[in-house]
Amino acid sequence: MADSTISLNGWNKLAGSNPAIHFIDITLRGCAQVMFQNNPLTGLFFFAAIFTGAYSEGIPAVAWGCLLGTVVSTLTAYISKLDTGSLSAGLYGYNGCLVGVALPTFLENTPFMWASIVLGSIVAVIATISLTDFLKNWKVAALTAPFVLVTWTILLASYSFFGIKGVSLPAPALPDQYVAPIAGIPYSDLLPDIFRGVSEVFLLSSITVGVLFVIGLAVSSLWAAVFAVLGSLLAFGVASFLKADFGSVHTGLYSFSAVLTAIALGSTFNKPSFKVLVYTIVGVIFTVFVQGALDVVLTPFGIPTLTMPFVLASWLFLVPNQDIMPEHRQ
Amino acid sequence: MADSTISLNGWNKLAGSNPAIHFIDITLRGCAQVMFQNNPLTGLFFFAAIFTGAYSEGIPAVAWGCLLGTVVSTLTAYISKLDTGSLSAGLYGYNGCLVGVALPTFLENTPFMWASIVLGSIVAVIATISLTDFLKNWKVAALTAPFVLVTWTILLASYSFFGIKGVSLPAPALPDQYVAPIAGIPYSDLLPDIFRGVSEVFLLSSITVGVLFVIGLAVSSLWAAVFAVLGSLLAFGVASFLKADFGSVHTGLYSFSAVLTAIALGSTFNKPSFKVLVYTIVGVIFTVFVQGALDVVLTPFGIPTLTMPFVLASWLFLVPNQDIMPEHRQ
Amino acid sequence: MADSTISLNGWNKLAGSNPAIHFIDITLRGCAQVMFQNNPLTGLFFFAAIFTGAYSEGIPAVAWGCLLGTVVSTLTAYISKLDTGSLSAGLYGYNGCLVGVALPTFLENTPFMWASIVLGSIVAVIATISLTDFLKNWKVAALTAPFVLVTWTILLASYSFFGIKGVSLPAPALPDQYVAPIAGIPYSDLLPDIFRGVSEVFLLSSITVGVLFVIGLAVSSLWAAVFAVLGSLLAFGVASFLKADFGSVHTGLYSFSAVLTAIALGSTFNKPSFKVLVYTIVGVIFTVFVQGALDVVLTPFGIPTLTMPFVLASWLFLVPNQDIMPEHRQ
Repeated sequence: MADSTISLNGWNKLAGSNPAIHFIDITLRGCAQVMFQNNPLTGLFFFAAIFTGAYSEGIPAVAWGCLLGTVVSTLTAYISKLDTGSLSAGLYGYNGCLVGVALPTFLENTPFMWASIVLGSIVAVIATISLTDFLKNWKVAALTAPFVLVTWTILLASYSFFGIKGVSLPAPALPDQYVAPIAGIPYSDLLPDIFRGVSEVFLLSSITVGVLFVIGLAVSSLWAAVFAVLGSLLAFGVASFLKADFGSVHTGLYSFSAVLTAIALGSTFNKPSFKVLVYTIVGVIFTVFVQGALDVVLTPFGIPTLTMPFVLASWLFLVPNQDIMPEHRQ
Repeated sequence: MADSTISLNGWNKLAGSNPAIHFIDITLRGCAQVMFQNNPLTGLFFFAAIFTGAYSEGIPAVAWGCLLGTVVSTLTAYISKLDTGSLSAGLYGYNGCLVGVALPTFLENTPFMWASIVLGSIVAVIATISLTDFLKNWKVAALTAPFVLVTWTILLASYSFFGIKGVSLPAPALPDQYVAPIAGIPYSDLLPDIFRGVSEVFLLSSITVGVLFVIGLAVSSLWAAVFAVLGSLLAFGVASFLKADFGSVHTGLYSFSAVLTAIALGSTFNKPSFKVLVYTIVGVIFTVFVQGALDVVLTPFGIPTLTMPFVLASWLFLVPNQDIMPEHRQ
Repeated sequence: MADSTISLNGWNKLAGSNPAIHFIDITLRGCAQVMFQNNPLTGLFFFAAIFTGAYSEGIPAVAWGCLLGTVVSTLTAYISKLDTGSLSAGLYGYNGCLVGVALPTFLENTPFMWASIVLGSIVAVIATISLTDFLKNWKVAALTAPFVLVTWTILLASYSFFGIKGVSLPAPALPDQYVAPIAGIPYSDLLPDIFRGVSEVFLLSSITVGVLFVIGLAVSSLWAAVFAVLGSLLAFGVASFLKADFGSVHTGLYSFSAVLTAIALGSTFNKPSFKVLVYTIVGVIFTVFVQGALDVVLTPFGIPTLTMPFVLASWLFLVPNQDIMPEHRQ
């Protein structure tokens, strides 16, 4: 907890003595780990943000799916008696948390969808162990790859199964050169767009949600909050400069992966310094290119990129740490 | 041979003293290794099944291709003086065996096709060594990935070359949401469908072939036979429940990868136990989702999944063995 | 320099004492490393060839992009104080060199394109370290994979960004069975086609350029020059035999990856011998299949294969070196 900006001694003592409170604690940490924070208070802010955002957008299933996914993943790891250090830090929960957000966002709200969240959250734990084992030689974390791979599998499978139907998946198509509207980029407030970018990490597009996420980050790590906002700002700037579809820029679709890259490279795995800052800036700029590229790659398959641009760019920029920078902090 | 349910002492002695019999022995074992059995009698049953199935379906080239592929792969490993343990166990033969089944199934029967089997069976050996080396850090086997990668390459290349032409490849298309027929799922016998699922491991859809495969498994390992049948049954149930295209379910196309996952997770790499059974069930269910997903991914490229759903799901579920279960048996 | 067929003692002494000459030296070696040569004279021949070819084809941006990419990559590695052995050998320069050739070939000549070369050449260095670290367990080099991955990302992203526009990218489409013209293969000179194949390593299709490349190889290593020519010849033969699109065969599009596979397997990583020769022949033949396959895979995405067929085939054939052949030379 050394990283926390607010003392949680009382809660930690309680969680240490009461199994029910302990389970709530690691469920909250699971949600917080989506943005790399090992902090139950951050998780509480995140859940509050997600429930606020989901209900105000009229998609409560997203909030309940998020809770269900985090609980099922945490429970799976708990029952399987997995490595207690990682378990207590919430590292088996965050992928299930995101599976639970993504499936209700894209699929029809049926019992099949809820069963898919349960299956997906169980498999997300197995995929987390698998990828962690696979990557440990290079001292690189699985990041949100287990979430992306499991969710992609289920969303792709939804095309094959009449029981699971996509409702807001993009129709499969061949890619086309994007042509900007003649009128040029419309006016928009910069600040709301930046917070929408942070909000899109959980597939929501809301200023309030984004602000709550940043506060949640700040109670755990000020640097994480700073890098999240700067990452969103930089991605907004790069995507606008490259003349990406303004609707997507505005909604935050070019920013959410960049937010995660910025926190990961800038504050989680490296200690902030000038060298790290330069490296993070290059990483964030490249994340915007990866986002644009992966959007094109997935067009024929009718599925969204989710946070894969962040995962790919961050793996690329994290593996060389011993050569370019001192060893990772974690 | 500890695993065999029937004594083969006489044959083994013969194979040990006569080089020609030894070569026949490892060719038979190569065929048996498609379903993880190191047993020449199993291989004999499998070849019998394939010749029966291929001739009764009017595609004798499939049977002769299978024999050719197994022999070429085994010969390549023999001449290259590869690791004798793996060689004698047939581990360099099974991928060539499947290359020889797949190419005549999808390509026009021309001299080019036969040359492709020879090339593919040679490269399958190289790919087996390559993948085995790549995966040994994680104590995971190459499974049938060499077969899939080599065959995909040749099938994809067939679109570029007028000399090699696909005859029963699906036309490249954009994926579409599957819509079930209004009349609902038609009547069908459960038992035949389960054996057709086992039969599809070798791309054949025949009850007799499936039964011969199960007998072939049983002479080597009763558990393998049990898991094959249960895997096929479970996959049938899951795919029907999810309302997959009934034609595909009926033909066994949702079952063959699941059959292999069930044998691999349930009996080959882990020792049967309650924990392993639960894990295998989750693995088989997820294999059905991977099958549905990969069908969609490959739609624009006009090639079949082959056994890749089994490979991907099994890698995912085999890597974490030290964390979740005792170390693999092999 | 033991490998060089011409003495460079004077130059090497100069480069050792003067930092500016040293930088020129490693920039030249960076260009030479595209075909695995650690030799500044080879690099000079290569640059001469590229400038000749680019100007004669009316695309000077390709030549200047090539120079810019090599310099930016080398400078990035220089400033980051990377491993001096690899740096001095030009191993951080060749991927940026190719990024600088590829982007002006396929994208509109705008300031965005030049900025993309700079970004791409910086990220190519990071990708080189990343992939080298990833692959070192298997004693396999990154080859030109960093170039391909970075360039694919930027080319794919060009469909999403109005600021970066493809001008000679193939339109995304569904693959189709290639049907050869009825008239049969037209007459053509074999020798020019072979040199055009070598020339296409740098995306140029010119006999003069190809000849200059072969001379550049010969001043460093006669074997490399021999394998380049034989690789191009063999690929020409295989692609013609398989009845590939004759326009592509003629332009050298089936040969350039095969040229690199031939040099890599035949002379760079293995010591020439009869066994190595046979292995290289199989590798080159398979590279032609991978080329045909990858052309099909990339059709829906509207991007070229670049040298990926070489990378994939060579990785496949280089990993098993301890099993099939003595350990790699490098």
